[in-house]
Amino acid sequence: MPRTMIEVDRGSNEPLYRQVRRVIEHSIATGIFDPRRRLPSSRELAAELSVARNTINLAYQELLNEGLVLSHERRGIFVNPEMLAAVAAEEAVSEPVIDWPSRMRRYADEGVPDVEKRADWYTYPYPFIAGQIDVHSFPATAWIRSLREALYQPHAFASLQDSVGADDPLLVEMIRREILTARGIEAGQDEILITVGSQQGLDLLGRTLLGPHHRVGIENPGYLDARHIFLRTGAQVYGINVDQDGLCLPETLSGTALVYVTPSHQHPTNVTLSMERRRRLLKIAAASGTIVIEDDYDSEFRYEGSPSPALKALDSTGDVLYLGTFSKFLSPGLRLGFLVGPAELIKELRRVRRYQVRHPPGHTQRALALMIESGDYHRALRYHRRQMKTRWEMLSQLAVECLPWDQAPYPPGGVSLWMKGPPNLDAVELVSHAEEQGVLIERGDIYYLQSSPPRNCFRIGFGAIPTRSIAEGMVRMGDVAKELLAER
Amino acid sequence: MPRTMIEVDRGSNEPLYRQVRRVIEHSIATGIFDPRRRLPSSRELAAELSVARNTINLAYQELLNEGLVLSHERRGIFVNPEMLAAVAAEEAVSEPVIDWPSRMRRYADEGVPDVEKRADWYTYPYPFIAGQIDVHSFPATAWIRSLREALYQPHAFASLQDSVGADDPLLVEMIRREILTARGIEAGQDEILITVGSQQGLDLLGRTLLGPHHRVGIENPGYLDARHIFLRTGAQVYGINVDQDGLCLPETLSGTALVYVTPSHQHPTNVTLSMERRRRLLKIAAASGTIVIEDDYDSEFRYEGSPSPALKALDSTGDVLYLGTFSKFLSPGLRLGFLVGPAELIKELRRVRRYQVRHPPGHTQRALALMIESGDYHRALRYHRRQMKTRWEMLSQLAVECLPWDQAPYPPGGVSLWMKGPPNLDAVELVSHAEEQGVLIERGDIYYLQSSPPRNCFRIGFGAIPTRSIAEGMVRMGDVAKELLAER
Repeated sequence: MPRTMIEVDRGSNEPLYRQVRRVIEHSIATGIFDPRRRLPSSRELAAELSVARNTINLAYQELLNEGLVLSHERRGIFVNPEMLAAVAAEEAVSEPVIDWPSRMRRYADEGVPDVEKRADWYTYPYPFIAGQIDVHSFPATAWIRSLREALYQPHAFASLQDSVGADDPLLVEMIRREILTARGIEAGQDEILITVGSQQGLDLLGRTLLGPHHRVGIENPGYLDARHIFLRTGAQVYGINVDQDGLCLPETLSGTALVYVTPSHQHPTNVTLSMERRRRLLKIAAASGTIVIEDDYDSEFRYEGSPSPALKALDSTGDVLYLGTFSKFLSPGLRLGFLVGPAELIKELRRVRRYQVRHPPGHTQRALALMIESGDYHRALRYHRRQMKTRWEMLSQLAVECLPWDQAPYPPGGVSLWMKGPPNLDAVELVSHAEEQGVLIERGDIYYLQSSPPRNCFRIGFGAIPTRSIAEGMVRMGDVAKELLAER
Repeated sequence: MPRTMIEVDRGSNEPLYRQVRRVIEHSIATGIFDPRRRLPSSRELAAELSVARNTINLAYQELLNEGLVLSHERRGIFVNPEMLAAVAAEEAVSEPVIDWPSRMRRYADEGVPDVEKRADWYTYPYPFIAGQIDVHSFPATAWIRSLREALYQPHAFASLQDSVGADDPLLVEMIRREILTARGIEAGQDEILITVGSQQGLDLLGRTLLGPHHRVGIENPGYLDARHIFLRTGAQVYGINVDQDGLCLPETLSGTALVYVTPSHQHPTNVTLSMERRRRLLKIAAASGTIVIEDDYDSEFRYEGSPSPALKALDSTGDVLYLGTFSKFLSPGLRLGFLVGPAELIKELRRVRRYQVRHPPGHTQRALALMIESGDYHRALRYHRRQMKTRWEMLSQLAVECLPWDQAPYPPGGVSLWMKGPPNLDAVELVSHAEEQGVLIERGDIYYLQSSPPRNCFRIGFGAIPTRSIAEGMVRMGDVAKELLAER
């Protein structure tokens, strides 16, 4: 019998017999066992791998059950000849025939930078990054309780069935009653669509409303992913500058099919769009037939004063499209968001989604609905908001102490600070030097649309970093910045 | 104080103070409370609604925390004037400005029927439908255990973070090792993409590889959703007939950009593509540079003989694209599937997906990986397959007994039987008469591409119906069929 050359790992969590099974499959596939002869007996293999014969028998039994091997009485176990074809085909390895790159559609966002998120961010002691959460404060117990409840009656069908184009009606109702009312928005069941993260809302809108002949206005600096999504429809994208009061509105939006705005806390600068500009935006959009998308991605996080009403709440035409998300609270990994708009548009978006992903997972939809209904969601949100407020207060004070330049006051909202250093600060260098000190921050230049963006901006996120690490992280960041500025 | 006209519901699960909060919000929004004057005191409101003052105070406290109302010392509680704007805007209701239908992109699949799934299918005693599961045999305990484990270290980051374009590496590894090997497929980590149901795989491929100048071949009869997805890319779709051995291959596929096939159990007829035709399909596809998509949607369900190897396992070029799903086992509501293909294509599909939904939910990905790793997945699958085998045996015998016409033997696989009645059977009528008897079956004509499809075909699904209901359901179906045929 040939040697398998593979050993089983007794320290592994994988049951021994499954490891053995893999050894057998691998040895057939790679030609170590000649598939035309009988396979080694359980006795032979047990000796070879130093495991009990029962373990080998268990592995063979599984392979027999699945039809990969056949047992011939008295002659032993053989590879199923139908499977041999697969093995033979593998031996005759030939070259790919299709030239894949030439077959793939090209998109117009080539050359536009992507937000790069490090997969290993959580191994850094000071992750001042945006868009991630502190997993230790995730309300795991309440979430698991809701997930369990969602698997039993009367919820099991909603959780497990193919709903084709439909959403979980209970989640829609909870969003309507418990989430939108707090933003001043009244919406009917047929005006809400659940999405796989609010980003799917953007993609569905782009696919449905935009094409190569359209112009789209976005904030400058602005949300990079939205820019990619719009560019990928073939549309022309231009930037509208942002100042202390938010978007600097042009006289007219004539010729602009769609504008995308983040009024609550502008992405990435966190400024709030003033009430007067909100009204004017709605007025000129209506005058020029421009569609307005309001991305209200972290309106829950307001630490002083009163929250501004949503643009959608001021909208008397019903035309404003509103995007909400559960990525900031609860977690981006759950991929749940929603979109509010006129019923006839929602109906069409539902059809587009139905031939894309059918519907967002039913189990997590129902669990989230139950978590909101029980009050657990809002309890956890209040706790989380207090935590974020503490971090915001610490950070806005530490930023002034540690970063040696004049700073404007930080808007009291969101889960990040937008920093504008002196003109001679190179934030790209700052990011890379800080990283060497275990401090992750985000470069700001990529959010600008112009070809020579300012290099002195960066972003300090505080959603993911544990509160206890903030002070030390800021001191380190300050030291790096001082050193960099002194070198200049 | 004006009457609120709304009563609280003491029998409701919703806490009283939250109901009161809604009463207040609603009364402001609808003008019952004049928002320019002080709001009713807790004493007044407690009397009006007959609840404790503390309950009212709790509701007001929540509204205060969220900034919807303001408290002025000694003067009382007032609506936040910033919120007044929202109320005022609502009063001045105007008409929509955007003509939505004229702004929405049109698709080429208008007029092609959709698979209609009744949302209330589970209220019928005999749901012989395809594409749903029997929720009572879902392995809820193992699934919840995996979901819980996935929320704690070392799994929490994989479950909860924003992974941008990445998949859960553990799930990819489990699919590679535990799912694909059983189908004779070897694939690297970079040749696998996790999808929100296998349907997302089809959509990503359509978006990336197809456009108005392409021709696509699909099986006739064939999977209706694939037809929609291909048509919606603008491509021309044509049908290739299916007989007892599966797809009837043409001499050449020259001029066809892509063919979509279901070799294990053809959708909807359940026939298995013969080994000889598999080889020929691969040969002529390679000769004409045609991309082959293999949808292996229920290969787990084979009840006699040995499973045929996947087309992908026979593919020596590495060009075949393979779609797998966890919708048949475990559940369509979880929306998890995967796609196997050449690394350079997978990389591009990952980028398309990243600007569409970012990634499938991390929590369910990691939980599924843990469920496979623990062996629970395959244990539950074996149990489920035995159940399905029992149902298949019952049904294929009952079909011959109850349906009064000559029937070809049923292929021993899949989770449905494809029925071909005598030429004078109108299956559309059969479906509607059966429904009146509590029996849900599926019409077959919608799966054909020709404009006058055969009317005598239908499908009996057995994945969702409890085993104990099968016999009675078949008797009822038989009675309806006999009656219909006698009338002719």
